Amino acid sequence: MNNRITSLFEIEYPIIQAGMIWCSGWRLAAAVSNAGGLGLIGAGSMTPEVLEEHITKCKAATNRPFGVNVPLIYQYVEKQFEIMVRHGVKLVFTSAGNPAKYTTWLKEFGFTVVHVVASARSAVKCEQAGVDAVVAEGFEAGGHNGREETTTFTLIPLVRKSVQIPLIAAGGVATGRGMLAAMVLGADGVQVGSRFAASEESSAHQAFKQKITEVKEGDTMLSLKRLIPVRLIRNAFFQQVSDSENRGAGLEELQQLLGKGRARLGMFDGNTEEGELEIGQVAAMIDRVQPAGEIVKEMIEEYDIARKEITQ
Amino acid sequence: MNNRITSLFEIEYPIIQAGMIWCSGWRLAAAVSNAGGLGLIGAGSMTPEVLEEHITKCKAATNRPFGVNVPLIYQYVEKQFEIMVRHGVKLVFTSAGNPAKYTTWLKEFGFTVVHVVASARSAVKCEQAGVDAVVAEGFEAGGHNGREETTTFTLIPLVRKSVQIPLIAAGGVATGRGMLAAMVLGADGVQVGSRFAASEESSAHQAFKQKITEVKEGDTMLSLKRLIPVRLIRNAFFQQVSDSENRGAGLEELQQLLGKGRARLGMFDGNTEEGELEIGQVAAMIDRVQPAGEIVKEMIEEYDIARKEITQ
Repeated sequence: MNNRITSLFEIEYPIIQAGMIWCSGWRLAAAVSNAGGLGLIGAGSMTPEVLEEHITKCKAATNRPFGVNVPLIYQYVEKQFEIMVRHGVKLVFTSAGNPAKYTTWLKEFGFTVVHVVASARSAVKCEQAGVDAVVAEGFEAGGHNGREETTTFTLIPLVRKSVQIPLIAAGGVATGRGMLAAMVLGADGVQVGSRFAASEESSAHQAFKQKITEVKEGDTMLSLKRLIPVRLIRNAFFQQVSDSENRGAGLEELQQLLGKGRARLGMFDGNTEEGELEIGQVAAMIDRVQPAGEIVKEMIEEYDIARKEITQ
Repeated sequence: MNNRITSLFEIEYPIIQAGMIWCSGWRLAAAVSNAGGLGLIGAGSMTPEVLEEHITKCKAATNRPFGVNVPLIYQYVEKQFEIMVRHGVKLVFTSAGNPAKYTTWLKEFGFTVVHVVASARSAVKCEQAGVDAVVAEGFEAGGHNGREETTTFTLIPLVRKSVQIPLIAAGGVATGRGMLAAMVLGADGVQVGSRFAASEESSAHQAFKQKITEVKEGDTMLSLKRLIPVRLIRNAFFQQVSDSENRGAGLEELQQLLGKGRARLGMFDGNTEEGELEIGQVAAMIDRVQPAGEIVKEMIEEYDIARKEITQ
């Protein structure tokens, strides 16, 4: 498979493992890159020191390209970029912020810059800012999400019509069949989160991985819409938020309820009732914890089968 | 194109025109059936007398098969079935209700029965009830919608895994590319609503059709979630509902605000600010009013191109 995404990242398959807080450290990123996809370290839950350690370990664990996901609203964003430059890791996926703010600076340092969007409007801004590719993430995706609630099926063709740069589809993609469907809709590659969050190499707590495999349809829901929308598993914490919202709670009350460290508590420390469990709707299709390399291999095999079927 | 859906309905292409209140009368159904798809009369906004008139006119306008969509919560449901039997139209798409209630009776009268679902769980109930095929409709679809908010990209593979009967994908499908993607995900055919609602033969008011062509991403939203979720265009009525919900309004207040005849007011009478305008997210891709036959033709052409592209 050779296309604009495999060329841009110098990888074998256009499968990108999402850079997810508390889930994607060096072990997962290296495993995906070694399998021919693109691994990403999720820096959004790392101090600069921790990120540096993960980059060093990832370089030791793979000779293939890997990248780092940096949320632009994160306090350490500039320090994270400095560490990446120092270690020669010049592939960054930025998210949650204005792509115009850092892209020129990053490009001057030789970075390949990909930005995550939830609308065609934002994709156009990325292209104008000089971003190399966009990830377009639909409503069904886990974690933080757009306010317009546009689904992958609608979003991908809209973004494809609006920009020329390479397009990576995210949200609902966990299989080779989903990968082919996304490419039919106009994507050049896919970003997979939930299935890798539940992989053996994921740094998520075992209890969270177990929970992902148990999720059925309807078990995740977009929450905290008045603060910043985030797709969560319905658990005790989700219910508390939901009840407060239905009572008409103000932003301050919601902010207080959210508090600090809820995501770590749920995903990394394994408190699956009181913690914030970010996962996509597609978790309903994930029923076991597998090695990340096996996931890449299965996706490619299924992609090839689906491609043959559709042409018969 | 020959598959389980074209065989079941004896049609050329597995494209079903959704039976939509206030939009799909005999003109639209006949035009779609004449073009090789399956046209549906939307009986949910018709008295038995009006349905009878539409069936009679539709039979005069096409020799091809067509069907009727009947919401099972509708007051005239049994009378509608009687009229269908009397006129020999034995193809029914039922929605919004329990498929077990009428399916056995309908099958005894020789009906082909298709039921609309928003979850794999409901699809299994349909199969158990003896339904011939299901329409699985994602969160992005216009009009009434499931509470679980599962998107087309996630829903289709889940339903495919759960039932053996033929599967029609709905929600977000308006193009040949969307049709191919849905079939890659496991569908045997597609149901298209929004694009046909804006067709020349649609009985919708010109002002509503115009509005559909103007919809941009983010301009529709799932509303009235505490009553029965429905995807609407954001207009003055939508805003009133939204404000009331944010104030924590009770069911009675919402019911009163909705009142009677809002859907007719918006879609048929053309009051695009005070009326209820049901349309899917994919309206963001629809930019002109076309003849329904041209829509079917364009979809098939694009489907063939996309199919060739993906195999290169």
